[in-house]
Amino acid sequence: MALTRDEFAAALYAQGSRYWDKHPFHVRLHAGGASPEELRSWVVNRWYYQACLSQKNAAIIANCPLPEVRRRWLARLSFQDGTQPAAGPQAGITEPAGGLADWLALAAAVGLDPAEMTDLRHLLPGARFAVDAYVTFCRTHDWVLGAAAALTELFSPDHMRDRVAAWRQHYPWIDPAGYAYFETRIPVVRADSSFTLDLVLDHCRNRLQQEAAIAALAFKCDVLWAMLDAIEHAGCRR
Amino acid sequence: MALTRDEFAAALYAQGSRYWDKHPFHVRLHAGGASPEELRSWVVNRWYYQACLSQKNAAIIANCPLPEVRRRWLARLSFQDGTQPAAGPQAGITEPAGGLADWLALAAAVGLDPAEMTDLRHLLPGARFAVDAYVTFCRTHDWVLGAAAALTELFSPDHMRDRVAAWRQHYPWIDPAGYAYFETRIPVVRADSSFTLDLVLDHCRNRLQQEAAIAALAFKCDVLWAMLDAIEHAGCRR
Repeated sequence: MALTRDEFAAALYAQGSRYWDKHPFHVRLHAGGASPEELRSWVVNRWYYQACLSQKNAAIIANCPLPEVRRRWLARLSFQDGTQPAAGPQAGITEPAGGLADWLALAAAVGLDPAEMTDLRHLLPGARFAVDAYVTFCRTHDWVLGAAAALTELFSPDHMRDRVAAWRQHYPWIDPAGYAYFETRIPVVRADSSFTLDLVLDHCRNRLQQEAAIAALAFKCDVLWAMLDAIEHAGCRR
Repeated sequence: MALTRDEFAAALYAQGSRYWDKHPFHVRLHAGGASPEELRSWVVNRWYYQACLSQKNAAIIANCPLPEVRRRWLARLSFQDGTQPAAGPQAGITEPAGGLADWLALAAAVGLDPAEMTDLRHLLPGARFAVDAYVTFCRTHDWVLGAAAALTELFSPDHMRDRVAAWRQHYPWIDPAGYAYFETRIPVVRADSSFTLDLVLDHCRNRLQQEAAIAALAFKCDVLWAMLDAIEHAGCRR
């Protein structure tokens, strides 16, 4: 029998117990115990996730036959990639503002040459495989399960808020200009996650679909957790 | 050895000999020899192509690691699906203007109940399989080959212009309000095809890639041709 809307929502929220804010690496990072090298490793490995997000979101759209959902999901690509530069003599010369540009600013703020981030030379295989698994999941599953996997956004605004506060306190050597990504993203995530939760609640009507959506969100928590496992383990070996 | 840029462009343009403007059904349609029933069959079967276009374009974006290409290709989704309704009490109530909405107007103009088009009851299997083959191609091939397949747009503006003129002349029973799709699309296609041609010429640098792009465009011509084969054959059986 299908879960009620409230039961289903509660089961989705319950996956927050697997969210990566509780990973030992994040706990230590927010407590001020990460070295500059570890912090930079977090930034460069998260870059790969950022760089793949638009392709992941396009895969969800590619699987979605509903124009009204596609229209709304499209905003995620513009947010991350920036919008198309205006035509004219300046077209294409400046990088449009967006999540990717903000993450490049974060890299500079923690003392990375952006090129050593974007060329993926420091990308750890475990982080790569986790991100690739997420993109592949969204390519190969129904769009509503891709949307359900995005519901880690239910848990991320508070985590991002805590991150900025902790980093400002514990890592004063980081240029605060680097926090634009998080500060821009927090209100957007709150709006996106509320829309996406309704979408998943509306479109998963039987128990099988509901269980698949809960599993998709659990899987996504595993993706994020595995990224931190890779980052933490690499730190142990140094 | 790689073709020169001019040789490669010429080989792509040469695929125009396979473009569906030369299909016997289109020749007869433009000469005024199609029955209202055949014309309506063309409109409902083309609807499936229209309905799948945004998913096809999202699949190309999902395969594309270049933000500057994704940003530009995204405009195709907004053109077809319309843009997101403004938030507020009216949000979601009216269908945003766009290619899909214009095709619904075309359906009404040729005397179809839009519902009997959108529920696909008249969709011919041969047309469905051809369109599905196109979407699958774009899902499973490099983004630049998906872009190359879209280069039937090199040939479509003149064909659309001729279509509107021929239909106005031969089928005066069609409400001219139905031609908005073509009239809006013609200048957009000219700009899109010019951008896409440069993209394909820029990104296919060796002979293997060039040959694959030419084959992708030939395949796309076969997709369109097969749709008309299905429509024409169904007419013969009536």
